[in-house]
Amino acid sequence: MAAPDYEARNQFHKDVILSLDGPVLTIMLNRAEQRNTFSKGMVENLIEVLDLADRDDRVRAVIVTAEHTAPAYCSGADISGGWKVLWKEEAEKEGIHAHRDGGGQLTLAVLSCRKITIAAVNGHAAGVGMTAMQLPFDFRFVWEGAKLAFPFVRRGIVPEAVSTYLLPKLIGLSRTNSLLLTGATVSPTSPYISALYHQILPNREDVYPAAKAFAQELANNTAQVSIAYAKGLLQHPGDSAEENHLLDSQAIKLLASSHDGADGAQAFLERRKPKFTDTLSKNSSPWYPWWRRIDVKHHRSKL
Amino acid sequence: MAAPDYEARNQFHKDVILSLDGPVLTIMLNRAEQRNTFSKGMVENLIEVLDLADRDDRVRAVIVTAEHTAPAYCSGADISGGWKVLWKEEAEKEGIHAHRDGGGQLTLAVLSCRKITIAAVNGHAAGVGMTAMQLPFDFRFVWEGAKLAFPFVRRGIVPEAVSTYLLPKLIGLSRTNSLLLTGATVSPTSPYISALYHQILPNREDVYPAAKAFAQELANNTAQVSIAYAKGLLQHPGDSAEENHLLDSQAIKLLASSHDGADGAQAFLERRKPKFTDTLSKNSSPWYPWWRRIDVKHHRSKL
Amino acid sequence: MAAPDYEARNQFHKDVILSLDGPVLTIMLNRAEQRNTFSKGMVENLIEVLDLADRDDRVRAVIVTAEHTAPAYCSGADISGGWKVLWKEEAEKEGIHAHRDGGGQLTLAVLSCRKITIAAVNGHAAGVGMTAMQLPFDFRFVWEGAKLAFPFVRRGIVPEAVSTYLLPKLIGLSRTNSLLLTGATVSPTSPYISALYHQILPNREDVYPAAKAFAQELANNTAQVSIAYAKGLLQHPGDSAEENHLLDSQAIKLLASSHDGADGAQAFLERRKPKFTDTLSKNSSPWYPWWRRIDVKHHRSKL
Repeated sequence: MAAPDYEARNQFHKDVILSLDGPVLTIMLNRAEQRNTFSKGMVENLIEVLDLADRDDRVRAVIVTAEHTAPAYCSGADISGGWKVLWKEEAEKEGIHAHRDGGGQLTLAVLSCRKITIAAVNGHAAGVGMTAMQLPFDFRFVWEGAKLAFPFVRRGIVPEAVSTYLLPKLIGLSRTNSLLLTGATVSPTSPYISALYHQILPNREDVYPAAKAFAQELANNTAQVSIAYAKGLLQHPGDSAEENHLLDSQAIKLLASSHDGADGAQAFLERRKPKFTDTLSKNSSPWYPWWRRIDVKHHRSKL
Repeated sequence: MAAPDYEARNQFHKDVILSLDGPVLTIMLNRAEQRNTFSKGMVENLIEVLDLADRDDRVRAVIVTAEHTAPAYCSGADISGGWKVLWKEEAEKEGIHAHRDGGGQLTLAVLSCRKITIAAVNGHAAGVGMTAMQLPFDFRFVWEGAKLAFPFVRRGIVPEAVSTYLLPKLIGLSRTNSLLLTGATVSPTSPYISALYHQILPNREDVYPAAKAFAQELANNTAQVSIAYAKGLLQHPGDSAEENHLLDSQAIKLLASSHDGADGAQAFLERRKPKFTDTLSKNSSPWYPWWRRIDVKHHRSKL
Repeated sequence: MAAPDYEARNQFHKDVILSLDGPVLTIMLNRAEQRNTFSKGMVENLIEVLDLADRDDRVRAVIVTAEHTAPAYCSGADISGGWKVLWKEEAEKEGIHAHRDGGGQLTLAVLSCRKITIAAVNGHAAGVGMTAMQLPFDFRFVWEGAKLAFPFVRRGIVPEAVSTYLLPKLIGLSRTNSLLLTGATVSPTSPYISALYHQILPNREDVYPAAKAFAQELANNTAQVSIAYAKGLLQHPGDSAEENHLLDSQAIKLLASSHDGADGAQAFLERRKPKFTDTLSKNSSPWYPWWRRIDVKHHRSKL
């Protein structure tokens, strides 16, 4: 794959603005006038860029953020035309079985990205702005003053975007119930939600810089294949301790035998910084991914 | 189903006192003189009432509580006759395979109730008073002064009532071990257990009123089918992110197409309170429940 | 089995020092000069002793600890010869499928031990010193000043020893990501990790005595079979609430019918301390373990 020119794509991507700074790709939401509501265009842009970043060895971390002067980080689905606006017309025609939630499609794209993913939540967030735009990321940075809302049950719908799977894993079912079943709006320091965040920052304008410095430090000091395999083990740990043992035995054997693993040990002995050079495109084993990717497309569609 | 007259049933229910106030059904434990110990009668009453409330569209929330002047919220199993008192005689005759734990039967009944469920723990709790009488509920309110005890391993038995499944999901396995494997007695503010509670209140007499106000607010501002489907997704999220995506796609498509979903969006645009009218008896899809209900009866019984 | 003489084994065990004090077996790591790095010998010693303790009815609790004057509790794998030192030569010859991670082998041995297991972390810990040497234990006691490091992704490898399975279960995936995907070094009071610890102590020299007093109290006041079955339920809870109900029904029926269960109830009624006498070797049911032990050996090995 030729290295993508992210900045050049900005003329085609209406709803996001991309910038690559060394190993860190930033995706800035570009719908401030619409409170960064989640539109069909935004989903499509995000999924496309996450897929590019996943395959581009230069990119070590992807940050999604908003302008810190925007009215919100992401204030939920764009329902200016009712809930319908986010559904594919095909689903409308073919019935409920063909429907695939747009938030969930984004969630799966974030989970599939083998790079470090960070949501830099520098403004209010609601609905899908709390679910797809935060939960599948590896790390969440947030502004202390953000209003965080899960209004689903107060709008006649249900929590979506894989949130009923992810949130209990992230912070436990007790806190999840207190958020998803109440339709609560909380602050990041609330005991219901604080464990969700890697860092809570007092000022809006400091959230993205903190996330970026964190991303750069990780990019500079971690190994690309290590991160991808560690994410794989965390997302697909196996169904038992024994199965996990078989998986991480394989992973650690492969990586310890790699250039990066060897240099990681050598650097430790020599008290120097390691020089990691392995990349996913050149140095990943055919064993990875060890899990079966589940196809969620609707194949019986006539369209 | 004709609407049940809960108050009229009080003459038949010895161990609980029922009262319906608008959408909120309160089940008050009525064994204060026995420290609200968990008796066979109490289990049977609770299961019967939870089943009624599940099917009664008028009921949006069920609160289980005690008199705040009682010696305890529920001080465990009634073992005045040894552990045997809670077992069905049939199980005694047919051997261990036929036994079904009474606490677990209550737990499954609480989990099956599609309405908001709340334990208002306004007194001390021990044993099954901590497990079946708290863990399967959506929310737990508790008195700060309550002594909370999990004495199983100190009594020669094991934690029951599905607690070894539920507690790790609710608050994580590290805290669970600190409670279940020690037989600890803790206060609600202990870091071992505080995440279990939606709210901790300084005064005993304030626990039930707080739970009731919370229940009424939720009943007034959430949609009945939304709550049931959200609870279904949280209890049966699927085995993978992809499976959850297929499930919540279906659920959100169904609900967004419903009256309540449409009015939820419309009300948001018109900045008014939604008017939810859909009910489980009239407006639930045949798709729900999407999971297989597992039969736990002992069918090889000769009795 | 003749009762093992643990102290007599100390002449054969180079890397650990054993001492049995009543019902509490202490395994002191004996590689202070090598910062208690995790060597092949240490793993083999630990697995052997855990297996003995598992089968020795006299032992109620096993504590792993270090000298509190040592430079570290366990500062990770011994990589003085590169990562290779921990692998079996057979695996080297037969390829990656035959490899079994040494940390994971220890983790499975700790999980299999039916007695109370405690890590008394009275010094710094890194790598496998954080994973196999802490995560599979029932309880972790730690010195407040310990530096706790998960450097895997900063060394070109991945978190091992079943850590990607255990840590999310113990403290949730959000905190786990903040530790495993950053390669962080944290203090025990960090919100990322504090929930992992049963107790955090200000002074190094107080960690082991606190763990030992805790172990003795549990040994004196809990039932041996109760602990084993409760651990079994927590490790193998079943895949659904209903399955767990079937399992804990069986377990509670068996134990309530046992001597210890009967005396536990009787002692409660008589307000006396119970006299537990049942042992795993004499009084465990053939039903236990109810789960299938998964074989992780590599059987296609030609060696």
